[in-house]
Amino acid sequence: MSSRLGKLVERLGGQLIGDADIEISGIASLSDADASHITFLSNPKLRTQAAQTKAAALIISSADDAAIGADYQGARIITENPYAYFAKAAQLFVEQRATPVVPGIHPTAAVHPSAQVASTACIGPHAVIEADVVIADHAVIDAGCFVGRAARIGALTHFYAHVVFHGACEIGERGIIHSGAVIGADGFGFANERGVWIKIPQTGKVVIGNDVEVGANTTIDRGALEDTVIEDGVKLDNQIQIGHNCHIGAHTAMAGCVGVAGSAKIGKFCTFGGAAMVLGHLTIVDNVHVSSGSMVSRSLLEPGQYTGFYPLAKNAEWEKSAAIVRNLSSMREKIRELEKTLKSLTGNSNE
Amino acid sequence: MSSRLGKLVERLGGQLIGDADIEISGIASLSDADASHITFLSNPKLRTQAAQTKAAALIISSADDAAIGADYQGARIITENPYAYFAKAAQLFVEQRATPVVPGIHPTAAVHPSAQVASTACIGPHAVIEADVVIADHAVIDAGCFVGRAARIGALTHFYAHVVFHGACEIGERGIIHSGAVIGADGFGFANERGVWIKIPQTGKVVIGNDVEVGANTTIDRGALEDTVIEDGVKLDNQIQIGHNCHIGAHTAMAGCVGVAGSAKIGKFCTFGGAAMVLGHLTIVDNVHVSSGSMVSRSLLEPGQYTGFYPLAKNAEWEKSAAIVRNLSSMREKIRELEKTLKSLTGNSNE
Amino acid sequence: MSSRLGKLVERLGGQLIGDADIEISGIASLSDADASHITFLSNPKLRTQAAQTKAAALIISSADDAAIGADYQGARIITENPYAYFAKAAQLFVEQRATPVVPGIHPTAAVHPSAQVASTACIGPHAVIEADVVIADHAVIDAGCFVGRAARIGALTHFYAHVVFHGACEIGERGIIHSGAVIGADGFGFANERGVWIKIPQTGKVVIGNDVEVGANTTIDRGALEDTVIEDGVKLDNQIQIGHNCHIGAHTAMAGCVGVAGSAKIGKFCTFGGAAMVLGHLTIVDNVHVSSGSMVSRSLLEPGQYTGFYPLAKNAEWEKSAAIVRNLSSMREKIRELEKTLKSLTGNSNE
Repeated sequence: MSSRLGKLVERLGGQLIGDADIEISGIASLSDADASHITFLSNPKLRTQAAQTKAAALIISSADDAAIGADYQGARIITENPYAYFAKAAQLFVEQRATPVVPGIHPTAAVHPSAQVASTACIGPHAVIEADVVIADHAVIDAGCFVGRAARIGALTHFYAHVVFHGACEIGERGIIHSGAVIGADGFGFANERGVWIKIPQTGKVVIGNDVEVGANTTIDRGALEDTVIEDGVKLDNQIQIGHNCHIGAHTAMAGCVGVAGSAKIGKFCTFGGAAMVLGHLTIVDNVHVSSGSMVSRSLLEPGQYTGFYPLAKNAEWEKSAAIVRNLSSMREKIRELEKTLKSLTGNSNE
Repeated sequence: MSSRLGKLVERLGGQLIGDADIEISGIASLSDADASHITFLSNPKLRTQAAQTKAAALIISSADDAAIGADYQGARIITENPYAYFAKAAQLFVEQRATPVVPGIHPTAAVHPSAQVASTACIGPHAVIEADVVIADHAVIDAGCFVGRAARIGALTHFYAHVVFHGACEIGERGIIHSGAVIGADGFGFANERGVWIKIPQTGKVVIGNDVEVGANTTIDRGALEDTVIEDGVKLDNQIQIGHNCHIGAHTAMAGCVGVAGSAKIGKFCTFGGAAMVLGHLTIVDNVHVSSGSMVSRSLLEPGQYTGFYPLAKNAEWEKSAAIVRNLSSMREKIRELEKTLKSLTGNSNE
Repeated sequence: MSSRLGKLVERLGGQLIGDADIEISGIASLSDADASHITFLSNPKLRTQAAQTKAAALIISSADDAAIGADYQGARIITENPYAYFAKAAQLFVEQRATPVVPGIHPTAAVHPSAQVASTACIGPHAVIEADVVIADHAVIDAGCFVGRAARIGALTHFYAHVVFHGACEIGERGIIHSGAVIGADGFGFANERGVWIKIPQTGKVVIGNDVEVGANTTIDRGALEDTVIEDGVKLDNQIQIGHNCHIGAHTAMAGCVGVAGSAKIGKFCTFGGAAMVLGHLTIVDNVHVSSGSMVSRSLLEPGQYTGFYPLAKNAEWEKSAAIVRNLSSMREKIRELEKTLKSLTGNSNE
């Protein structure tokens, strides 16, 4: 359950200053850590707090270490990116602590005889695995999951309880799908004939790369004719909706409640704040960052940060400003009249 | 797996120009189609692309056909609404290709003895059907669905895996409910007594008409005293929330992430863009169209398109414009002062 | 199935005017009630309608009763808060009518031998209860629920079908969790290293107090290092997302589609309208009320009502106002120039 500090540094790198034989039993925040913990400083504003931590060891950048100087005397690991180092260290301690996965198929699971389930994979109680599904080594399909006909699940991928992964969809290795996510439901496609909607069959699938995480109750629709594609390393939070035929580039991350309408093409290394929305058929290039609550209603062809939400105010103030927003064109008209009057007064001296 | 072009036209109508004996094996987009496919042109901007398609046949309007003229020499079906024709044709090819549904109750399903399940219906593994439920002919209830006491499910209706359909709720014929949808949870009704919320029992139900589609992880709450009603032909995308006692008129469609608060009355033939929101107790008449990301905060008693979202900008520009929006009343004040000063200068010549 | 009016008043209080022996069989709205029902008036605008109700008895405030006067001659219960009284009365009638819960574990449920399930608790078909779970008296875990290792569920708490309640999470007494809710999925925590996201293990849990209601398909994430906390009496509607490490104060209520980003600290007795959003790491004090569709992008340290959404308009009008909003800084510039010109004309007479 614990690790020598020296062994940690051998595994994860960084420069160790202090006693390599200190035993570390876990990770904690600057304020909660005690002499059995390792902690980290990634926000320079917390330097004072870091100098006073009771942790056995501190993960820190060389700049912050120099700034704190002699105020902190404990062991430390100097690294370029303390937050990433902390993430990796935390993974090690959690792995040590977690219940080992027991391979095999729970007797209450309904697995079709034609499904190929690796002997090292684990299928939980009441899971349903349909015909021709392929589940690779060390994949874990928890209780009550549904995996549709001919779906493919890569090695070490983990579906938490109650994931729905529909027929023909694919996910790569080391993926994580959280509970209640639905991958591969029909896209929202209808033709309108005299007011009545005629369903367009959705015959594409969802293709998900490696190292993708999908949050709880998030939905990713299958393509209409072509596929919906989620590239490697994409991270989607909870309650997100991805429409049919979307393409999301590698390492793009979206916070909770984001919605992406059909056929949007989103680049790599983008981020979307919570509840951001993207209209259909738009193109967003690499390295675009959209703020929370913002509606993307046109293609974004230049990298950068984009925002668009109404600023919050006390309700009475909002009522005033909203009333003016509704009549902005009359305000513009008044300004034009003022300009005209003034121009006639000054004999066009502004020109 | 394939169909003669002539047979297709016999079934779906339209005017065939070209060889009725061409064999069609499926549907594809203008660019992906090969000589075994049929394709369609519904967007006049794609005329050039249509003229160059490799498809065996093209579904097209007479206007587009005239415009393309001799540029396209292949077989074509002339019809008023090529997109609707394509939808119907696609349904035929998909039906031919789909796995046939095998009627019967999976041995792992828990079906109450008092439930009436038609012999042509199909109940999947681990489904739970409570007492007094009625399931009509050719209905399909997929894996892990829950159908509560005395619910009624019409003929040919399909619940995908993991639908929850609570007690006493009803759905008509040819409906589709996607995975993770929850129909008939309690509405959000509380009385406040000195800060503490007292639950108001929700004793209404959800009544859904014929030909309704409900998206993945969408929720429709049961009514408080009366019912929540979804009329025929309504199409709801994923992640939608419909509050208790709402009434949604026939053939209205809502894109993903829309929210409708309790007791809203929405007309027929309306459309709602993604993430549009409707406050409670409002009335929206027929043929209203609400843009994505727009908050409907008052009743809409005239048909038309309505919009209300803050325009997206580069973050620095948004910060400028948002700061001014916060102080619009001071800007209005300045304009009034300017008008006053100018008036005094010009000797009231503006009046 | 019915109750004497006098018995109702003995149990719930209030002043009875009229015949205590009237038999009441249920609750109905002012307009739907007949001579077997009790109804209520909480909105003074409905006084005329109340005076004409056919109900056997009317729950009413003394002010409304005085205002209606002789127009209404039926039995009435005078109480300070008729809506809360109605809620309590409705609970009584519904309890009388509901199917009795049969304690015990359904034979198709998968309950780990080390789980402690009270003999008065009820576990539905296909539920999965992992090791070391504790389920208290009269708790009801409906069909297909998943309860993870070492979770704790208080007395009289009810999970509707298809709830996911992950390992180590806790909920108090008399709670209600609706179908499809996911409690305790991983928070959205990643460190970025040269564009690639590194997962930060989420080792906190979710701790929920007494008398909490959680809506259908709502998600509450477990904490990263510390816990996510939902205090007593909180009411969450459907489709809500609560991020990791949030703390929500007692008796706060949130309507559908609200999103709260990680580490937000929200006070007691707050309310959030539908689709309101709260950014991460903010503090909101007690008695704050946020309007629907509003984005909270800074801490709110004073009680009151806050709003921020773009006012809805006909699309053509919105296009005009949105175009001006995009260029508000140029409008401000024009006003400054006008002020300058005017000042030079008037010889600084404004100063």
